[in-house]
Amino acid sequence: MPITPDQQAEIDALRAQPRQTLRAVSEGMEAHLYKAREVLDHGFVRVIDYMGDDAAICQAARVSYGKGTKSVQNDAGLIRYLMRHWHSTPFEMCEIKLHVKLPVFVARQWIRHRTANVNEYSARYSILDREFYIPRAEDLAAQSVVNNQGRGETLTGEEAERVLRYLKDDAGRAYDHYEEMISDEGQQGLARELARMNLPANIYTQWYWKVDLHNLFHFLRLRADSHAQYEIRVYADAICEMVKDWVPAAFGAFEDYRMGGANLSARQLDCIRKMLKGEEVTQETSGMSKGEWREFEGVLKG
Amino acid sequence: MPITPDQQAEIDALRAQPRQTLRAVSEGMEAHLYKAREVLDHGFVRVIDYMGDDAAICQAARVSYGKGTKSVQNDAGLIRYLMRHWHSTPFEMCEIKLHVKLPVFVARQWIRHRTANVNEYSARYSILDREFYIPRAEDLAAQSVVNNQGRGETLTGEEAERVLRYLKDDAGRAYDHYEEMISDEGQQGLARELARMNLPANIYTQWYWKVDLHNLFHFLRLRADSHAQYEIRVYADAICEMVKDWVPAAFGAFEDYRMGGANLSARQLDCIRKMLKGEEVTQETSGMSKGEWREFEGVLKG
Amino acid sequence: MPITPDQQAEIDALRAQPRQTLRAVSEGMEAHLYKAREVLDHGFVRVIDYMGDDAAICQAARVSYGKGTKSVQNDAGLIRYLMRHWHSTPFEMCEIKLHVKLPVFVARQWIRHRTANVNEYSARYSILDREFYIPRAEDLAAQSVVNNQGRGETLTGEEAERVLRYLKDDAGRAYDHYEEMISDEGQQGLARELARMNLPANIYTQWYWKVDLHNLFHFLRLRADSHAQYEIRVYADAICEMVKDWVPAAFGAFEDYRMGGANLSARQLDCIRKMLKGEEVTQETSGMSKGEWREFEGVLKG
Amino acid sequence: MPITPDQQAEIDALRAQPRQTLRAVSEGMEAHLYKAREVLDHGFVRVIDYMGDDAAICQAARVSYGKGTKSVQNDAGLIRYLMRHWHSTPFEMCEIKLHVKLPVFVARQWIRHRTANVNEYSARYSILDREFYIPRAEDLAAQSVVNNQGRGETLTGEEAERVLRYLKDDAGRAYDHYEEMISDEGQQGLARELARMNLPANIYTQWYWKVDLHNLFHFLRLRADSHAQYEIRVYADAICEMVKDWVPAAFGAFEDYRMGGANLSARQLDCIRKMLKGEEVTQETSGMSKGEWREFEGVLKG
Repeated sequence: MPITPDQQAEIDALRAQPRQTLRAVSEGMEAHLYKAREVLDHGFVRVIDYMGDDAAICQAARVSYGKGTKSVQNDAGLIRYLMRHWHSTPFEMCEIKLHVKLPVFVARQWIRHRTANVNEYSARYSILDREFYIPRAEDLAAQSVVNNQGRGETLTGEEAERVLRYLKDDAGRAYDHYEEMISDEGQQGLARELARMNLPANIYTQWYWKVDLHNLFHFLRLRADSHAQYEIRVYADAICEMVKDWVPAAFGAFEDYRMGGANLSARQLDCIRKMLKGEEVTQETSGMSKGEWREFEGVLKG
Repeated sequence: MPITPDQQAEIDALRAQPRQTLRAVSEGMEAHLYKAREVLDHGFVRVIDYMGDDAAICQAARVSYGKGTKSVQNDAGLIRYLMRHWHSTPFEMCEIKLHVKLPVFVARQWIRHRTANVNEYSARYSILDREFYIPRAEDLAAQSVVNNQGRGETLTGEEAERVLRYLKDDAGRAYDHYEEMISDEGQQGLARELARMNLPANIYTQWYWKVDLHNLFHFLRLRADSHAQYEIRVYADAICEMVKDWVPAAFGAFEDYRMGGANLSARQLDCIRKMLKGEEVTQETSGMSKGEWREFEGVLKG
Repeated sequence: MPITPDQQAEIDALRAQPRQTLRAVSEGMEAHLYKAREVLDHGFVRVIDYMGDDAAICQAARVSYGKGTKSVQNDAGLIRYLMRHWHSTPFEMCEIKLHVKLPVFVARQWIRHRTANVNEYSARYSILDREFYIPRAEDLAAQSVVNNQGRGETLTGEEAERVLRYLKDDAGRAYDHYEEMISDEGQQGLARELARMNLPANIYTQWYWKVDLHNLFHFLRLRADSHAQYEIRVYADAICEMVKDWVPAAFGAFEDYRMGGANLSARQLDCIRKMLKGEEVTQETSGMSKGEWREFEGVLKG
Repeated sequence: MPITPDQQAEIDALRAQPRQTLRAVSEGMEAHLYKAREVLDHGFVRVIDYMGDDAAICQAARVSYGKGTKSVQNDAGLIRYLMRHWHSTPFEMCEIKLHVKLPVFVARQWIRHRTANVNEYSARYSILDREFYIPRAEDLAAQSVVNNQGRGETLTGEEAERVLRYLKDDAGRAYDHYEEMISDEGQQGLARELARMNLPANIYTQWYWKVDLHNLFHFLRLRADSHAQYEIRVYADAICEMVKDWVPAAFGAFEDYRMGGANLSARQLDCIRKMLKGEEVTQETSGMSKGEWREFEGVLKG
């Protein structure tokens, strides 16, 4: 259960109090504010605040006095131009603040994106909740046999059952001992900053995460990608749904140039030029390694 | 004239259209939005957007679901605690976006603060305006004789007149030639990206500058300081006036712990301890250099 | 055992091959290169590379052509001046690259220092070793009763024994199951990126961490401080020993102005001024909260 | 004259004193150390220090104990893999420190790359030299008629002469007045921090600039590109010559995947797929704007 009734009441209270502002407002994003979008078994993402909209990107690009745009269509064209030519600074002029609840092993990947602001729930001060990520049966993937870093087929039968049993039992026992160690009933009680070391990486933590749109796009390109670990990809996907409503033109350009695009090397461009002239090109004549050629074929197939 | 009637009309239009939002709103900051606060002879600072308020700082520190605060008084106490113990991340959860018009030599100092987002008016694309910073007579300071980096007394008489004449004439001539070089009447016209090299460092440029509150405080501590160059200090002072209305509790803590505070060394703390015991301490017995001792005496006098 | 014989042989091989360079060399640091300084029960810190020395700080401050310094004494004076006046950029001109082996819960604190470069051992690709941090009996502290974030007295007797037993047993069992889950003997084998979620936060990880001297000092000020958690402080202390030999003048200034110094607020400076005039000041008349007054008294006592 | 005899003597002295180190050494880079590579009429780039080599990239990627590589060939393959899959952190493990002398208008573009460390020669403290960038006749380009941001044909005849005369005369006069204003002979002398505002943007400044290899590649991709302004591109080109000798494998991968590569959008990839099937695609049917289509045709032509 990602949100308790008390927490829901606080969220409802915030959503019940619209106020007046002179700032840029994105209606699409207002609809998302504070609501928790559920992710995994106990996690969520919710927007706490945002700054700017599509027009604000154009306004910054033009360093203008007013809204800085003549029409929504012009804005979309300018935004595509900026995205295509890697003019990243206008996208940095939009900002988003999220509240995220996520397993620790996902948080450890996430935090590697350094150009962001983070406040994490402190396990030195506070007591963590008894909530662990336990994968659904269909997400219990085997180690890939072709990719050291990837997943293969789904585990089945006894093997799957054993894995789930281990994950649940070990987490439960670790948490029981965590609670017992920090308890001050009839004993001193171990310091929280020490006791937490007994907790496994599938325990949930939460944080406030604030990032500008340029760096968010970078995060989404890597983490909403099919090569990202499933457990972080679902968070990236959830954020995509919000960004799409927040800055539709910028998100459209991002989808075309980044998510759906590809970075081709000089060698790969050469191959394409030859192919377009009708020449045959093979992995051997391309100068690419087998892995690179396979990726190249994937791009050409779409 | 920092703002033309057209620009003022655009600003008025933006201020005439309040909209509804569910986000945190700072009434103090809404009053400033879009309005240009004049700085120097042609410059200004104006707030384009902001994110968060005092309560948002506390909310982030607590990673909370609702507004995260019980009372304004509790907020102020927590904010003082966070500031005192260098917990900088909650302050990073507030963000401000400014439109600034400023002389190039000021912009060159300003940009050294790297943790910010910037979109500057492009002199490759566009033609710069004929606007130069010419100091007021009372700001024409001589080189300091005690501080290599500082200012001494105000210039007077013929010397002051000559300086002003040079600054005005040289800027005017440089701009005439700039215009003449880029003109395409009866000639090809020099590329703008080249012609701009003829313009002096007191020409005005403008940019959108976005920064979080923690890094803004760092900027203000260095640039609103009495050792900062006057021409950037007036911008920092203007920003202080806005921040004071935006996040009053955070600004109060900043004034107490940073602006009005001092960082004392181990040696200096030792001296104070001795002095409080009634011992006499001199520069010679303090272990400090003359310059450091002079600064220390300044702190003790207040 | 932090280093295996094979690893030691690799280190020895690197230390046996001095080469010629025209770069700045710090003899003090050369003596540390590659050697592992043991920290906690299985961890270590070792220097992999460094750039610059005390002279390089001065050289950068002066943007000079040669070594940029006249004498070691002048260097030390300039470095103290730079540190005192928060001229941070010359210190950024030195860089250090460390190889660190550390428990995951320490890594999670450490990574919050964002201005650094990190390559961590990947538990998606690779299999983690069976090594866990188990505190020594004397480091098993109780939760502090005065400070939510701190440690109190040392646990004793049965309570201490039970804690150690839980930590050891739970870690061992979690690792057994980790191994069993990823095994491909007679089964598919769970993906490593999933299996790792069963491992507790006291398992060891390792990374390469590269940072400039200014940001390293910031890290050390916070983490070698008495308020930092013991398990990260011992790493900071180990790094201090290396930095002292690498850039002795800079480290001396850091100790005086940062580690041994204090940041006093405007209110606190006022109190000191009154006290020096012989006036009595109490918590009530100071305007400080009780917590702040206690800290202030601590500074005055030394 | 970019380097005076005195400065050359300092450089020679540094190059005459090889010392022993246990660190990674790049022979290719040692040959460049301290030597000034001339750029434009008075500028230069010279390497002051560096950290790491190709092997260090692999070593970091593997978080290894020893040199971390089996053969130069394996290294090159791994480096290509890392570059192709945007694994940027291993490249961040190499660092370079440059001393650059450059016109102020170039410095203003350069500094927009924020993830770097900079110490610039201070015109508040010191007196700038009388050195200005005056373009060669063949670099006096007209404003482009097709690209707002670009250059067209070379100016000729009287127009070119007039431009050069203006640039020289205005710079000379501005500097005469600068000198006269700061002079303390028979007058107080204007503060340096004020007098500098009279100097045009083609005056030379200098700085120490330190950056990691990943961010340097980003800089080079944008600034060694044909769309970059000529006056910064020549600096980027000069740096490429050094990097090629420093980390040959990484530079090779950079040339293939970044400099010679292209980022194609989803739409563009669709077009290529259709073309490879023999379908005709035109700008109208492509969904691209005219500008984008022109760029796409450019990529296909090579």
